[in-house]
Amino acid sequence: MNVIVDLCVVPMGVGVSVSRYIAVCEKILAEAGLNCQLHAYGTNIEGDWDTVFTAIRRCHTVIHEMGAPRISTTIKLGTRTDRPQTMMDKIRSVEEKLKLAERPD
Amino acid sequence: MNVIVDLCVVPMGVGVSVSRYIAVCEKILAEAGLNCQLHAYGTNIEGDWDTVFTAIRRCHTVIHEMGAPRISTTIKLGTRTDRPQTMMDKIRSVEEKLKLAERPD
Amino acid sequence: MNVIVDLCVVPMGVGVSVSRYIAVCEKILAEAGLNCQLHAYGTNIEGDWDTVFTAIRRCHTVIHEMGAPRISTTIKLGTRTDRPQTMMDKIRSVEEKLKLAERPD
Amino acid sequence: MNVIVDLCVVPMGVGVSVSRYIAVCEKILAEAGLNCQLHAYGTNIEGDWDTVFTAIRRCHTVIHEMGAPRISTTIKLGTRTDRPQTMMDKIRSVEEKLKLAERPD
Repeated sequence: MNVIVDLCVVPMGVGVSVSRYIAVCEKILAEAGLNCQLHAYGTNIEGDWDTVFTAIRRCHTVIHEMGAPRISTTIKLGTRTDRPQTMMDKIRSVEEKLKLAERPD
Repeated sequence: MNVIVDLCVVPMGVGVSVSRYIAVCEKILAEAGLNCQLHAYGTNIEGDWDTVFTAIRRCHTVIHEMGAPRISTTIKLGTRTDRPQTMMDKIRSVEEKLKLAERPD
Repeated sequence: MNVIVDLCVVPMGVGVSVSRYIAVCEKILAEAGLNCQLHAYGTNIEGDWDTVFTAIRRCHTVIHEMGAPRISTTIKLGTRTDRPQTMMDKIRSVEEKLKLAERPD
Repeated sequence: MNVIVDLCVVPMGVGVSVSRYIAVCEKILAEAGLNCQLHAYGTNIEGDWDTVFTAIRRCHTVIHEMGAPRISTTIKLGTRTDRPQTMMDKIRSVEEKLKLAERPD
């Protein structure tokens, strides 16, 4: 099953700056061969369900090994069976609607 | 790795009422032997990481089989290595602080 | 506009235990006259949109005043125009479907 | 209070394709003068708390007016008092850590 995920990992008990933990997650996701796109409040990921969730589990394991005693993560995940859809398809679909709305009659 | 999860599954393309899909998820989670607690905007689950995510994947598979062409799910998930913590521990911890705050000096 | 919300506030930079901050949020929400229900990974709230979001903003203000330099909050929120629905309605609707499924033929 | 938000609006009861509703949200956010960045599973927004949440409320109002009887929205929101931080700051902070990790000794 293919899945599009938005992943936001919040390490707790390690102070206010957490970007080095996020950077490690980015590396783990890339090493898993997943197509990823970092944004300002998380990372978009697309791929096979098991590959994605094995990588997310590894993010938790490694962040704990780096010293974070607690992690609170938020995931949005979408699956669909009507047609294949990539992350770029989703963005293009909204942008096309925006262009149509701006087109003069 | 033990995990506490909050799961909110939103089937799309099946009309406005989705409670029968949520009821099926509750059954899947219970059949997986997971400790669950339904609330008004999701379900709390605690258990082993792989057991939890295998059950969530099964929720997606079965909801698609029931006819929903698209699903958008939101998951919050917490892990900690400093000490074991159950769902009831989390609730009790907040309720104790509330009682302390209400105690007259 | 009436709204049902699931609120999960994560104070950062204050160590691993955050229940005293959550307890303060519970008090703020109750003082705003909102119907709330604490669960293991957040708090369900129902009420008028502006009352709810004014209270959530106050949670952020007060948690910062308590010394937390950073807060990452996750909110799920539902509105509907087809019919009124309370938090209890949502839970009952799922539980009824579960009972129907368990009924012998 | 300044806030960085990730907004994901899911209209329900309007079929499987929802991009035209998302496009309308993008317009509402832009018209509110907010700095926004669409991604594959939501939209990053930065701005003043009240401006952001007034715009999000307007998204719900307009999507209902367009005919969607139900909406389930997920919001992540971050505030901090230790220092100002833009959406670009957050991305750059992670990217710098990634570059440091890749630098040969």
